[in-house]
Amino acid sequence: MNIDGKQYRTIWLGPDGASAEIIDQTKLPFALEIVSLKTMEDAAHAISSMQVRGAPLIGATAAYGVALALRADPSDDGLDRACEVLAATRPTAINLRWALDEMKKAGQNQPREARVAAAFARAAEICDEDVETCRKIGEHGVGLIKAHAEKKRGEPVNILTHCNAGWLATVDWGTALAPIYRAYDEGVPVHVWVDETRPRNQGASLTAFELKAHGVPHTIVADNAGGHLMQHGLVDLCIVGTDRTTASGDVANKIGTYLKALAAKDNGVQFFVALPHSTIDWSLDDGSAIPIEERDAREVTHMTGQLPDGSIATVAIAPDGSPAANYAFDVTPVRLVTGFITERGVTIGSRDGLATLYPERRKQSAA
Amino acid sequence: MNIDGKQYRTIWLGPDGASAEIIDQTKLPFALEIVSLKTMEDAAHAISSMQVRGAPLIGATAAYGVALALRADPSDDGLDRACEVLAATRPTAINLRWALDEMKKAGQNQPREARVAAAFARAAEICDEDVETCRKIGEHGVGLIKAHAEKKRGEPVNILTHCNAGWLATVDWGTALAPIYRAYDEGVPVHVWVDETRPRNQGASLTAFELKAHGVPHTIVADNAGGHLMQHGLVDLCIVGTDRTTASGDVANKIGTYLKALAAKDNGVQFFVALPHSTIDWSLDDGSAIPIEERDAREVTHMTGQLPDGSIATVAIAPDGSPAANYAFDVTPVRLVTGFITERGVTIGSRDGLATLYPERRKQSAA
Repeated sequence: MNIDGKQYRTIWLGPDGASAEIIDQTKLPFALEIVSLKTMEDAAHAISSMQVRGAPLIGATAAYGVALALRADPSDDGLDRACEVLAATRPTAINLRWALDEMKKAGQNQPREARVAAAFARAAEICDEDVETCRKIGEHGVGLIKAHAEKKRGEPVNILTHCNAGWLATVDWGTALAPIYRAYDEGVPVHVWVDETRPRNQGASLTAFELKAHGVPHTIVADNAGGHLMQHGLVDLCIVGTDRTTASGDVANKIGTYLKALAAKDNGVQFFVALPHSTIDWSLDDGSAIPIEERDAREVTHMTGQLPDGSIATVAIAPDGSPAANYAFDVTPVRLVTGFITERGVTIGSRDGLATLYPERRKQSAA
Repeated sequence: MNIDGKQYRTIWLGPDGASAEIIDQTKLPFALEIVSLKTMEDAAHAISSMQVRGAPLIGATAAYGVALALRADPSDDGLDRACEVLAATRPTAINLRWALDEMKKAGQNQPREARVAAAFARAAEICDEDVETCRKIGEHGVGLIKAHAEKKRGEPVNILTHCNAGWLATVDWGTALAPIYRAYDEGVPVHVWVDETRPRNQGASLTAFELKAHGVPHTIVADNAGGHLMQHGLVDLCIVGTDRTTASGDVANKIGTYLKALAAKDNGVQFFVALPHSTIDWSLDDGSAIPIEERDAREVTHMTGQLPDGSIATVAIAPDGSPAANYAFDVTPVRLVTGFITERGVTIGSRDGLATLYPERRKQSAA
């Protein structure tokens, strides 16, 4: 996607062919800084410190992390150790595990001397596949937006999204935002309600940044506002991403997603989840089995932003000594999900809906 | 209530007998600053800038505002003008209108030369009545907490609250927090989940400040977290305040309240609203008729807090130029309200529930 007219992905092979370059998302929206990941540890740090985030991009970064690890130690032990360290960086995103499995396969089938090249090649492939997958999510999802546009006769279609499931959460295009970019590019009038997404503000910082850079009309709102907007007919549909979706269709996504899904149900607003196949955990049936990451309380009690002089500062927003809890995700039960948008098409929010799109996995899941 | 062992109310008569002193709540939790309101304009500014907030305290401040106006101009015109200016400061809190009506009655029944004294006396009375009302809300509400405590056999009762409906929102004791203070003072083990309450953070700043100063165990969470907490059995009951409740029981309260009520319903968690009689708008039936204040977008895009050196700073948290919307309240339909806690007792969440407690108003409302 474009930033000030320049084409970017969120991760790409370094000019030396032996590193991965990323956009440091902790610096957005105030600065565009490129960071070079030269070691597996750099990649693990990038994921755990959220320089990169979003389930698909976490997977892609972990893939490059394995390639970087094999450069230092191409042994089986080196491969296993790298996968172990990288798997521990974030517990909820299932794409991480998926990408590590892919990288293991790529490494294990090769003699040691060919492993590094094979790993870098597979990591690049995973990135390219993600771009194509997200492009297709956009292609399939845009029909939902067009259907609303027809009913609204020229009025913009109002779409609410939570957190950032845009191109910054993937390698390019995004998941939840892919249909929105596609609609915008095709001239369908859209307007996006951007949930701020406390405590890390990925909506107000990353989603707003993306949409603004692309020119898509949007309005930032506090996470608290979504219910009121839906009560007043100001939301035509919700589209969110997911960090892990079970075979039954329960959706783990950024904390607060469940509240928006409840409000959508209560007000008859469609609630769609956009995801690539790699986000589906066919081994899990019940969303309550998904591990929910708890992060540093300081993310709740402190806030980072830009001072009037342009410098970045972190301010305390709670009394010193008041404790805070920081659950990073919640689980939206499938009964609240209208449908899924995947690279294979749009399907209803149910176990059968997912199984219809992925018949080869249905067998696996049932086995 | 106590701050560092010293007894405070949120508003009191100045030492000169001709001003009102308030705690400037925009400075909390980082500084305790007392501001002297010497004119009606000072009082109007204190309300609109949210140096004072919370429906009952807005009413009390408006009452002193009328008294201050009559000091400058005790004419009928002066009285009317003051009421008009003060009524326009905040649109949603009905206590404001109630207090102005009370002050009009107090002024109109007096010859001009006696008006100022009568107005100051009535304002002081309104404050004293509010303290007594809130004390009774605590007395009636504590039984609900004790019922949970019995079932939990010594484990703390987990109560979720949104925004600040504590003593800082009233003259003393609070509404939603009054039963919690009462329980704590009686030795009932309680723990409060404090919603941050974006965009103005009255939970993380004011509620946490109050609870910490009083010693009540609490944990601050992002507004997004409440649904997850309820899904995991970590909330025994919710208690919130209200800025205006209709005769049918629809509850206008801080934006985001509706989302918590939906989550409570979905998880079988009790959802109580604590309020004094002056917050009930008997003239309205449908919550959708309650005017919802829209505030400055900058409250969403900027955040004020304390830098490590102790100074207060405001940082931007969104891209420059991304628009924001700032709806201050939402309406929770009565079907999601388990019950009301008022100075007259606890009643079920329904039109009949309210009418049973206020039979004299039922007649008025039906008329």
